[in-house]
Amino acid sequence: MDKVSHHDRIPAEQKPNGLARLSLSRVLIDTYHENVAYMHRDNPVYRAEGFKALSKVAVRIDGRSILATLNVVEDNSIVTCAKLGLSKSAFTQLGAIEGDTVTVSQAEPPESIGALHRKLAGERLGLDEFTAIVQDIAEHRYSKIEMTAFVVATHRNELDREEVYFLTQAMVTAGSRLDWHENLVVDKHCIGGIPGNRTSMLVVPIVAAHGMLCPKTSSRAITSPAGTADTMEVLANVELPVERLNSIVREHRACLAWGGTAHLSPADDVLISVERPLSLDSPGQMVASILSKKVAAGSTHLVLDIPIGPSAKVRSMQEAQRLRRLFEYVAHRMKLSLDVVITDGRQPIGWGIGPVLEARDVMRVLENDPRAPMDLRQKALRLAGRLIEADPDVRGGDGFAIARDILDSGRALSKMNDIIQAQGSKGFDHNHPQLGALSFEVRAPASGVVSGFDNFQLARIARFAGAPMVKNAGVDLQFKLGDKVDEGEVLYRVYASFSADLEFARQASLRSSGVSLGRAEDVPHVFVEF
Amino acid sequence: MDKVSHHDRIPAEQKPNGLARLSLSRVLIDTYHENVAYMHRDNPVYRAEGFKALSKVAVRIDGRSILATLNVVEDNSIVTCAKLGLSKSAFTQLGAIEGDTVTVSQAEPPESIGALHRKLAGERLGLDEFTAIVQDIAEHRYSKIEMTAFVVATHRNELDREEVYFLTQAMVTAGSRLDWHENLVVDKHCIGGIPGNRTSMLVVPIVAAHGMLCPKTSSRAITSPAGTADTMEVLANVELPVERLNSIVREHRACLAWGGTAHLSPADDVLISVERPLSLDSPGQMVASILSKKVAAGSTHLVLDIPIGPSAKVRSMQEAQRLRRLFEYVAHRMKLSLDVVITDGRQPIGWGIGPVLEARDVMRVLENDPRAPMDLRQKALRLAGRLIEADPDVRGGDGFAIARDILDSGRALSKMNDIIQAQGSKGFDHNHPQLGALSFEVRAPASGVVSGFDNFQLARIARFAGAPMVKNAGVDLQFKLGDKVDEGEVLYRVYASFSADLEFARQASLRSSGVSLGRAEDVPHVFVEF
Repeated sequence: MDKVSHHDRIPAEQKPNGLARLSLSRVLIDTYHENVAYMHRDNPVYRAEGFKALSKVAVRIDGRSILATLNVVEDNSIVTCAKLGLSKSAFTQLGAIEGDTVTVSQAEPPESIGALHRKLAGERLGLDEFTAIVQDIAEHRYSKIEMTAFVVATHRNELDREEVYFLTQAMVTAGSRLDWHENLVVDKHCIGGIPGNRTSMLVVPIVAAHGMLCPKTSSRAITSPAGTADTMEVLANVELPVERLNSIVREHRACLAWGGTAHLSPADDVLISVERPLSLDSPGQMVASILSKKVAAGSTHLVLDIPIGPSAKVRSMQEAQRLRRLFEYVAHRMKLSLDVVITDGRQPIGWGIGPVLEARDVMRVLENDPRAPMDLRQKALRLAGRLIEADPDVRGGDGFAIARDILDSGRALSKMNDIIQAQGSKGFDHNHPQLGALSFEVRAPASGVVSGFDNFQLARIARFAGAPMVKNAGVDLQFKLGDKVDEGEVLYRVYASFSADLEFARQASLRSSGVSLGRAEDVPHVFVEF
Repeated sequence: MDKVSHHDRIPAEQKPNGLARLSLSRVLIDTYHENVAYMHRDNPVYRAEGFKALSKVAVRIDGRSILATLNVVEDNSIVTCAKLGLSKSAFTQLGAIEGDTVTVSQAEPPESIGALHRKLAGERLGLDEFTAIVQDIAEHRYSKIEMTAFVVATHRNELDREEVYFLTQAMVTAGSRLDWHENLVVDKHCIGGIPGNRTSMLVVPIVAAHGMLCPKTSSRAITSPAGTADTMEVLANVELPVERLNSIVREHRACLAWGGTAHLSPADDVLISVERPLSLDSPGQMVASILSKKVAAGSTHLVLDIPIGPSAKVRSMQEAQRLRRLFEYVAHRMKLSLDVVITDGRQPIGWGIGPVLEARDVMRVLENDPRAPMDLRQKALRLAGRLIEADPDVRGGDGFAIARDILDSGRALSKMNDIIQAQGSKGFDHNHPQLGALSFEVRAPASGVVSGFDNFQLARIARFAGAPMVKNAGVDLQFKLGDKVDEGEVLYRVYASFSADLEFARQASLRSSGVSLGRAEDVPHVFVEF
C-alpha cells in the first residue's frame, strides 16, 4: 500500500533546520474549495519528509500559513522537482506570488479535528467546538474528506436543537455580518424544491413599496432549473459590489441580488462543495445554513415558506411541523423574529419553469396582466402580507389587503422597475420573451383530470432542456391540478436552444412526463395554512 | 456559487448524438484510488455539457467505461482544450492508450448510491446492498466524498453485527479468493497498535515446521513504525508475483509476503485512502477488513490477538470482550474457525522498534540467543500453540509444548531460513545489524521503577527517526515494565540515518519520553489470558 516507503532517502543536509524550502508555482486546477499542494514524486523534499499522497502539509511564508492536501505529480509540466505547486485558490489565500520561497512541513491536523472526532464518536458538542470547526472550514483548513465526515456526522438527527443553534451561531461568527442600522429589516425564504416558486421577486417590491427595508440576496440554482438570482438576472444585473448594493438599498429600500459576493456565512459556501455531490439534505444543516445567512445579512424579521406535497422536499404535515419547531427554536436563540408558513407544494407555482419563463410570469403579475398566474400572485400577496404585519403600525390581519393594494395600484411594479434600473436593466420584454428557438410539446395521452405533478421530474426536464445555464430554456405548463384535459391537448411545451439539450429533455419526458391524469378524486389533498 | 452557468453555450452541432468525443491524454497526478478526469475550462465539451467541478462523468471506449470525478483545468500543459485527461489509475482501469478517442457524458451516480443514502438515513442494509456498494467502491466508481460518507455512515455502532457480516462477505465477493485445496489453512493476526509485536515472523515458521499450511500475507505499516511486511523485507523479498508465492507455499508450507499484489478484498485497499487521513477506527470496519482478507486468502483457522493496555487500541477488558464477540459472530457466519486471545498490551513487545531492530529480535528468538527478548518468545509460542491445537491430532493444551519444542530444537529457524531463501534472501546478519549511523540516548531523569510505556509516543519517536522508510532507524529499549532503573541509566537508544530525522525524534522525545518512572505499585495491572 505504501509504495512511497521504497524510495531511498536523500541526505539530511538538504533539509536545513528541518524545514524544507521551495519556490512556488501556480497549478491551474479548480479544486473547488479544497487547498491542494502539488509536489513532484522526485522532489527531494517529498522523499525526505516522507510525505504521503492526501496527507496534510503546512505551507508558510512571512508568518502567514495555509494547510493543503498533498497531491503527488510525476510530470514536470505540472510542477517541476524543485518547486511546490499550489491550486489557484490556495495561492490566493496564501497571498503569495509565483517564485516566492515558502517552507513546507508535515501539518498536524487542524485544531478542531479533535472536536470532529468527538462528534464522530456520537458526543454532543458545545458552541466553542462548533465555532472552531466552522472557522477551520471557512478558512479552508479541512480537506474534502474531513468536510464530508463533518457533514455526515451532523446529518439527520445527530444534532440536537441546541447544537443546531450552536452551528448556526458558529456560521455567522465565521463570516461578515451586515448592520443596516434599522429596527426592522425583513426577508423571506423558501426551503425550495417547488419549480416556478418565484415569490421573492414579488414580495420584495411589495414590502419595499410599503416602506420596509428588504435587502434581498439570493443564491443561484444548485440542483433546480432556476434560482431567484438566475431569474432576476434575466431582468437586471445581480452581481454587484457590496458598496453598490448598499447604496441601492439605501435609495430604494430593497435589492434583488446574488448573495455570493458578501462573504456572509462563508463556511456554508465551502460545505456545499461536498453536500452537493452527495445530495445530502439534513434538517439541522438546512436550518443552520438558511438562518446563518439571514442573520449575517442583517435581517430582523423573516417569513419562511415550507411547501408540502408528494414530490416536495417535505412530504407530510408532521415533518413540516417538526421542521417548523426547529426553525423557530434556532431563530429565537438567534434573536431573529420568524414567521413560518406551511404552503401547498403539490405542483409548480406559476406557468413557467426556467429563468426567462419565470421572469415572464413575475412581470405579468406585477403588471396585473390577465395572463398572470393567479397562484403565484396569491401566494406572493399572502407572504408579503405576513411580512407587512411585522410593521408595528399594521394591525394583525390587514397585511394581505395592504399588499394587494400595493400590487393592484402598480406601486409594486414601479418599485420593481426602480430596482431593475438601479441594478442595471437587461431590457427584458416580458410581452415578447425570447424563448428557446427549439421546442416540443407533451400532450395528454388520454382525457381526464390533472391529478398530480412530479416536481422533481419537471425540474429534471427543464434542466435537461438547458435551464438555468440557458436562460430561455425550460418548461411552460398549460394546466394546473384539477383541470380537465382532452386527449391530445398540450400539457406543456419544452423550450431549448440546442438540439442535443432538446433531445435529452425529450427522452426524459418520454420516460415520465411528470404530469398524471386521473379522476377528480385522485387529486391529492393537502391541508395547509395557505 | 455556480459561476459555470455564466459561460455561453456552444452550438449543439458540436455534440453529435448527445455524446461528446475527445482524445485521451494521461495526467500524471497520483489521485490515490480516486478516478479523476481533467478537462480544460475552454474545452467546448465542458461548456456544452454543463459539467461542474467535482461532478461525475462517464468515460467510455469500445463498450468499456469508468466513472471519474471531474477537475477543471486552466492550463494547456496539463490538458489541452481538445482532450480529456485521466489520472494514471483511471487510465489503466479504462484499458486505453494515449490518443484513443473516448466519449464523455454526465454520469448518473453509481447504482449503489441509493443504498448509501438509505444507510445515511439510518436504515439497516441487506447483503445485496452491501455487495453493490462494495463492488462499486472496489471498481473505483465512488468519489472520495462518497467513500467518506460510507465510512462515516458505517462508523461506530451504525452497523449491527449481521450488517458487519454482510459487509465482510461483500468485501470477499468483490475480490479474488484463494483456494489451497486443504482442510486446514492457518493464519494469525493482531489488531495492532503495539510496537515490536512481530510474533507472525515466529508463529509462521513454527506452525509450518509442524506441517501446517500457513500462507501469510501482511500489510506494510500504515501509521506504525513497522509492519510485518516491512520487517520481513529486511530479511527477504516480500513483493512476489502470485504464482511464485504459490509455489513457495506448496514447497515450504508457508510464506511471509506483502499482501498487496493478490487483489484480496480490494475494496478495503480503496477505503483506506479515506480512513487513513481521518484516522477513523471503527469495530465493524475493523472486523470486516481483517476477516475479509483472511477468508479471501483461503484461511480456515485464525488466531486473533487483541492487546489491552492504557495506550493500546483497546483499553479495557469490557471493550475487548465486545470486540471479541463481534469477531466471533462474523467469523462463524463466514465459516472461519476463530480463536481470539486477549493479550497484555501495556508495553512494546521485544526490545527493538523499527524494521531492522525488530528483525534482529525475531532472529535472536529463532536462534535461541540469550539476548532474545523473552516476552516476544513467550507470546509467539502461546499463539503458535493455539494454532497447532487446530490440528485434529493434537490434544487441547499440548500446543504450547509442541511449539516450544519446534523452536528450541532449531526446526523453526531452519523453516524460516527456507522461507527466506525461497523468497530471496537479503543476507541480513542479525549478529551485526547495520543500525542507523546517528543516535542519541534517552536517560532516566531519576531512579525508580519503570511504571508505564506510552506505545503511541514510542511509535511516534521511531517514525520521526525514519522508520519504516529508513529500515535501520528506530528505538531500542533497554528496560521492561517493573524493572528498576537508576538515575542517568539509558532507557532507550534512538537510531537514525539522517540528521534532520534525528533532530525531529529528539524533539519528540524531549516533549515526552514515552517511559514513566514511579514506584512498583504504579505499574498498571492487566488481567489477560496471556
